[in-house]
Amino acid sequence: MDLNTITSPSFLKTMTNEELESLSQDIRDFLIEKCSITGGHIGPNLGVVELTLALHKAFNSPEDKFIWDVGHQAYVHKILTGRADQFDTLRQFKGLCGFPKRVESEHDVWEAGHSSTSLSAAMGMAKARDVLGKSNHVVPIIGDGALTGGMALEALNHIGHEKTKMIVILNDNEMSIAPNVGALHNILGKLRTHGSYNKAKDDLEYLMKKIPAVGGRIAATAEKVKDSLKYLMVSGAFFEEMGFTYLGPINGHDFEDLEENLKFAKSADGPVVLHVLTKKGKGYKPAELDTVGTWHGTGPYKMETGDFVKSSAKGPSWSGLISETVRKLAREDKRIVAITPAMPVGSKLEGFASEFPDRMIDVGIAEQHAITMAAGMAMDGMKPYVAIYSTFLQRAYDQMLHDVCRQNLNVFLGIDRAGLVGADGETHQGVYDIAFLRHMPNMVIMMPKDENEGQHMVKTAIEYNDGPIALRYPRGNGLGVPMDEELKTIPIGSWEVLEEGTSAAILTFGTTIPMALQAAEELREEGISVEVVNARFIKPLDGAMLDSLAARQIPLVTLEEAVLQGGFGSSVLEYYNEQQQDVNVTRIGIPDAFIEHGDVPELLNEIHISVADLKKQIKSQLQQATV
Amino acid sequence: MDLNTITSPSFLKTMTNEELESLSQDIRDFLIEKCSITGGHIGPNLGVVELTLALHKAFNSPEDKFIWDVGHQAYVHKILTGRADQFDTLRQFKGLCGFPKRVESEHDVWEAGHSSTSLSAAMGMAKARDVLGKSNHVVPIIGDGALTGGMALEALNHIGHEKTKMIVILNDNEMSIAPNVGALHNILGKLRTHGSYNKAKDDLEYLMKKIPAVGGRIAATAEKVKDSLKYLMVSGAFFEEMGFTYLGPINGHDFEDLEENLKFAKSADGPVVLHVLTKKGKGYKPAELDTVGTWHGTGPYKMETGDFVKSSAKGPSWSGLISETVRKLAREDKRIVAITPAMPVGSKLEGFASEFPDRMIDVGIAEQHAITMAAGMAMDGMKPYVAIYSTFLQRAYDQMLHDVCRQNLNVFLGIDRAGLVGADGETHQGVYDIAFLRHMPNMVIMMPKDENEGQHMVKTAIEYNDGPIALRYPRGNGLGVPMDEELKTIPIGSWEVLEEGTSAAILTFGTTIPMALQAAEELREEGISVEVVNARFIKPLDGAMLDSLAARQIPLVTLEEAVLQGGFGSSVLEYYNEQQQDVNVTRIGIPDAFIEHGDVPELLNEIHISVADLKKQIKSQLQQATV
Repeated sequence: MDLNTITSPSFLKTMTNEELESLSQDIRDFLIEKCSITGGHIGPNLGVVELTLALHKAFNSPEDKFIWDVGHQAYVHKILTGRADQFDTLRQFKGLCGFPKRVESEHDVWEAGHSSTSLSAAMGMAKARDVLGKSNHVVPIIGDGALTGGMALEALNHIGHEKTKMIVILNDNEMSIAPNVGALHNILGKLRTHGSYNKAKDDLEYLMKKIPAVGGRIAATAEKVKDSLKYLMVSGAFFEEMGFTYLGPINGHDFEDLEENLKFAKSADGPVVLHVLTKKGKGYKPAELDTVGTWHGTGPYKMETGDFVKSSAKGPSWSGLISETVRKLAREDKRIVAITPAMPVGSKLEGFASEFPDRMIDVGIAEQHAITMAAGMAMDGMKPYVAIYSTFLQRAYDQMLHDVCRQNLNVFLGIDRAGLVGADGETHQGVYDIAFLRHMPNMVIMMPKDENEGQHMVKTAIEYNDGPIALRYPRGNGLGVPMDEELKTIPIGSWEVLEEGTSAAILTFGTTIPMALQAAEELREEGISVEVVNARFIKPLDGAMLDSLAARQIPLVTLEEAVLQGGFGSSVLEYYNEQQQDVNVTRIGIPDAFIEHGDVPELLNEIHISVADLKKQIKSQLQQATV
Repeated sequence: MDLNTITSPSFLKTMTNEELESLSQDIRDFLIEKCSITGGHIGPNLGVVELTLALHKAFNSPEDKFIWDVGHQAYVHKILTGRADQFDTLRQFKGLCGFPKRVESEHDVWEAGHSSTSLSAAMGMAKARDVLGKSNHVVPIIGDGALTGGMALEALNHIGHEKTKMIVILNDNEMSIAPNVGALHNILGKLRTHGSYNKAKDDLEYLMKKIPAVGGRIAATAEKVKDSLKYLMVSGAFFEEMGFTYLGPINGHDFEDLEENLKFAKSADGPVVLHVLTKKGKGYKPAELDTVGTWHGTGPYKMETGDFVKSSAKGPSWSGLISETVRKLAREDKRIVAITPAMPVGSKLEGFASEFPDRMIDVGIAEQHAITMAAGMAMDGMKPYVAIYSTFLQRAYDQMLHDVCRQNLNVFLGIDRAGLVGADGETHQGVYDIAFLRHMPNMVIMMPKDENEGQHMVKTAIEYNDGPIALRYPRGNGLGVPMDEELKTIPIGSWEVLEEGTSAAILTFGTTIPMALQAAEELREEGISVEVVNARFIKPLDGAMLDSLAARQIPLVTLEEAVLQGGFGSSVLEYYNEQQQDVNVTRIGIPDAFIEHGDVPELLNEIHISVADLKKQIKSQLQQATV
C-alpha cells in the first residue's frame, strides 16, 4: 500500500493478519530505502514493524498512551500516524525528528532520547489516569538493554509495589546498542529458552498431582512449593517477584501471538510485562547479520549491498583516536582500566577490549554505576578511563560530584560527543557538561584543538594524579593534522596563542578553533589584527594569560560550542570579576534554549555561531571602543 | 570496658560471645549518652552494634574493605577504630564527622552521605583487587532502603553478571529513613517470614524424593522443578536470579549466627548477599518504639525520657510550612499530587498524606524515578509537587534537564534543605542546585525572604502553568514573621527593594536577607546608605531592576549561600555582560571547595559570608570608587 496515504492508525482495526504481513513488508521496504539516504536507526525499527502494527491495532492511540523508551524505534509509529511523507527529511534541519516529538503528532505523548525513562513516565501517566478517573491504557515499550538503567529499575520496584495497571512491552532483541550485559540479561536468556509457556504449565499441573498428600510442617512446605512453582515454571520469577504479571516470551513477528497476548494483557488488573522477542534489523540481511551493533544507527548506505557510504573526513575518528591512545598507554600502565556504559562500539573500544579483556568493563546502560565504580577503582590505586557521551554523563551528575570530585579521585573521563551532535538532536546535544562540571571542586576539564593535541591530552590525563580530569572531544573526525610520534604532557591550566594579534583576541577551544582562525584570517585581510587563543583548559583557566590579555586592554571574545549560562565565557567573566579587572568581554555560545536536530554547521549558523558572526562581534566591539 | 582505650579493632579477635555482648551494652550506653548531647543518627547505629562487632572480628580492616552505604551507621565502626574519645565533638565544626571520613582513619576506605553508592564502589574495589592480584575481602553494608536506589540496582545487575567475589551485607531493618516502599521491600518481607533456612531445606529434600520418576518431556520439567526449588525455597529467588548466593535471613543481634554465616560467606567464590535482620534503635526504648523514622537522626534529647530538646526557633519549620500550604491548595486544586523520595517525615508531608492518601506518593529512595514520574503526571494534566532535598536533587539532574525542562512540563519542585545544612556536612550541603538548574532552559527558580513570602510562593508555583518551577527553602525554621491570611501570587521574575539606599546595593535572597539587612543597618549608622534588594527570583532575573541599578552607577554586591561558580552572582555578571553595561559587581558566596560539617553560622563565618565581610566588601568598593 502507499504509505503516504496513511493519516491515522485506525485503518488497522479491520486488517487481517495477511494484510498486516503485506503492510509489514511495505514498511520494511520503505524504511530500508529511506534510511539508506538519510541514515537513521534502521536496525531497531526493522525489529518492531509487526509489534508496532499490533500495538496500534490493539489499542486506541492517542487516548491509550504509547511511551517509546529511548524513542529511536518510533519510525513505524510515525508512518502509521501520518508522517510517511516526511521521511525524506528524517533527522535533517527542520525535518522529521528521529525521536517522538509532540509538535509532530498528538500520537507522540512522550519525548525521549535518553534511555530508561518510559516506566517512570508511564507510572506518572497511569497515576494521572487513576486520580482523574479515566480508564485509558498506558503502554511503555522498553528494550531489554534500557531495562537495566537505574531509573527503569527504580520504576519497576515502585510499579510492582503499587500494582498500578499498565502494560509493559519488553522488546527483547538480546541487544541494546551493543550486546547486553548484566544479570537481567541472563534472566531473560533463561526465559527465552524456556520453551512454550503453555506446555510448561501442563507439565506442572501433572507434576503437582503426583506430589503425595503429606501432613504437618511438610504440608505447609508443599503448599509453598506449589505456589512458588506456579510462577517459577510458567513465567519469569524475576518479574513476578517484582510484582508484575509476566506473559511470554512470545514471537514479536507473529501477529497471532501478539494479538492474543495483548488481548489478555489488556484484561489484566495490575501491571503486566509482555515479553516480546524481536530481531533487530529483521528483513534486511546486512542488518540481521550484525552482531556488534553497527546497524543500530547508521549514516547513509548502499541499499543493495549494505555498504556504508564512506565519510569524506580527513582525520581519524575522535572516539577511535582517544581510545587507541588510551590502549597504547595501557600497555605500560597497568593501572588503566577502560569502562563504558553500553557503548563499546560507539566509543570504539573494541581494540582495547581485545587486547585487555580483563581491563575492559562494559556495565550496560548504567551511567551512575559506571562512574561510582570508577571511583571505587581509583580509590584502590587504579586509573579508570570512563568513555561516556557528554549527554549521558548527565545521568551521573551526582556520582561525579558526591563520589568522584568530593573524594578527589583519579578518574579519567573521556567525554565523547561533546558539543552539538547533529542528527540526533536536542536530547543528545553535548552542550551542558562544561556548565555542570565546572562548579564541581577539584575538576579539571580540557578540550584539544586537534587530534594531535588530543593524543597528548590522553597522556596528560593518565599522568595527572591529583584528582578527576575530563577530556572532551567531539562527534566525528579530526582535522587530518600530522601526528607526533612521541606523546607528551601539557601543563595543567596552560593555554597557547595560536595566532598573535593586536586589536582583539578570541578565546576558544576544540571544535570552534578553526572557525576562530578563519575569522582572524579574514579580518587580517581587512586590516584588523586578531589574536586567537587555544583555551584548551576550561578549568582551571590560564590566569597568567588572562592577566596579560587584560593588561593589553583589547576586546576579548569567548567562543564555545556549549551553553552560555554558567559556561566557559562566564568563567572568564568570573575570573576578571574576582581579579577586579575591567575587561571588555563578549561571549558567544549556545543560548538558553534546546537546540533541535540538523547538520551541525547549519545549527551553529542558526544560533549565530559562525565566522560571520564572530567577525561582526569583533568589529562591533572595536567600533564601540573607538567611539 | 573503657571505650576510649580502644585503638584498633584487633582486640575483638579473641573475644568470646559473652564478652562481645557485654561490649555491645557498653557501646549502646555510650552512644545513647553521647548522642543525647550532640544529636546524631542514633537509631541506625544502635541497630548495627552487634553486626559491626562481628564484622570487625571476622575481617581484617583496613585490608578488608568495609563500605558503609550512606555512612550514617558508622559510629560503632568509629569507636572500634579508636575514635571514641572524639564523640563529644560529633558533627560539630572541626569535630568528628557523622559519616566515614578518610582523614580520620585508615579504616574509612570510602566516604558517603548519599545513599546507594556502596555496591558500585565495592565493585570498583573488587575489580581493582582482581586486576592487581590481591585477595582481600570487599564488604559493602547496605540497608534495605538504599537497595532500591537506581545505582544500587544497576550495580547488583552488573555484579551478579560478572560473578565478582564480594560479601554484601544486607542490613534489613524494614525501614530506610521512613518505612520502606517498593516491590523489593515486599520480597524481603517474604524472606523475613520464611522461617528457618535449614528446616525448609530438609523439608524440600523430603518432598523431592516423593516426586515419582517420570519420563520424556515431563522428566525434564521435573528436573527443572528440582533445580528451581533449591533456590526458591531455601533462599531468595530475587537475589539468586540476580546472580548472587543468598544467605539468610539471620538475626543481626546474635553473635553466633553472625559468626557462622560470615565464615561461610568468606569461603564462597562469587558474590554473596548475607541478609541480616536488625532492629533500628535497639536497646533504647524511645527509639525502638519509633515507627515513622523520628529516631533516624535527631537533635539532642533527654536521655532518661527520650524527649527531644525543644528548639528555640520562633518561626514554623520550613518543610512544614511549605507542605501544609501545598496541602491547603490541594483542597481546591485536584491536579496537585505530592511526591517524596523516601522523606515523608523530613519533608513533613504526613498531613498531606493523611488528608489525601491517593494523591501522596512515596517512591522510596529513587530520586530519578520521582522526577520523571512527575514529568509523566504533568504531561497528562496533573500538577505534581515534588518535595526533595537540594543535595538529593543532584541525583536527578538529567531527569530535570531531559524530561522536565526539555518538555517544559508543569512540575513544581520544593527544594528542601537549600543552602548549608550544618551537622550533616559536605555530602549534604544544598549549595549546587542553583548552579545546575540555572542553565536548564525553561526553569524558574525562586527563594523566599521569609515564611510569609514562602507561602505566597507556593501559591505562585501552583498557579504557574508555563513549565517547571522550583521553590528553594532552607533547613530549619522561619523567622517568626506575621503570616497573611490570604495567599497571593508573585509576578514571575519580580524582585523587591527591602531597604532603599543610595551608595551601594546588596542583591540577595532567602537565608542571607537578614544578614544583608543587618549589614545595611550597621552601615547606615556609619553614614553609608545601602540598598537591600530581595532577588527572590534567581531565574529569570529582574532585568528592569538590574537596569535601573546599573543606571545609578553604584557598586553592587551579590550575596548567596550557594556556590559562586555559575551561581546567582555569575548570572548577574552574565546579564550585564549581555546588556553591555559596565557595572561594579562584587560576588559573595561559597568558594570552589567542599564545605565541611558544623554549625551554619560558624561555617558561613569561616568562608567569609558574614555581616562583617559584607560591610568590609561594600566599604572597600566605595573607597575604590572615590580613589
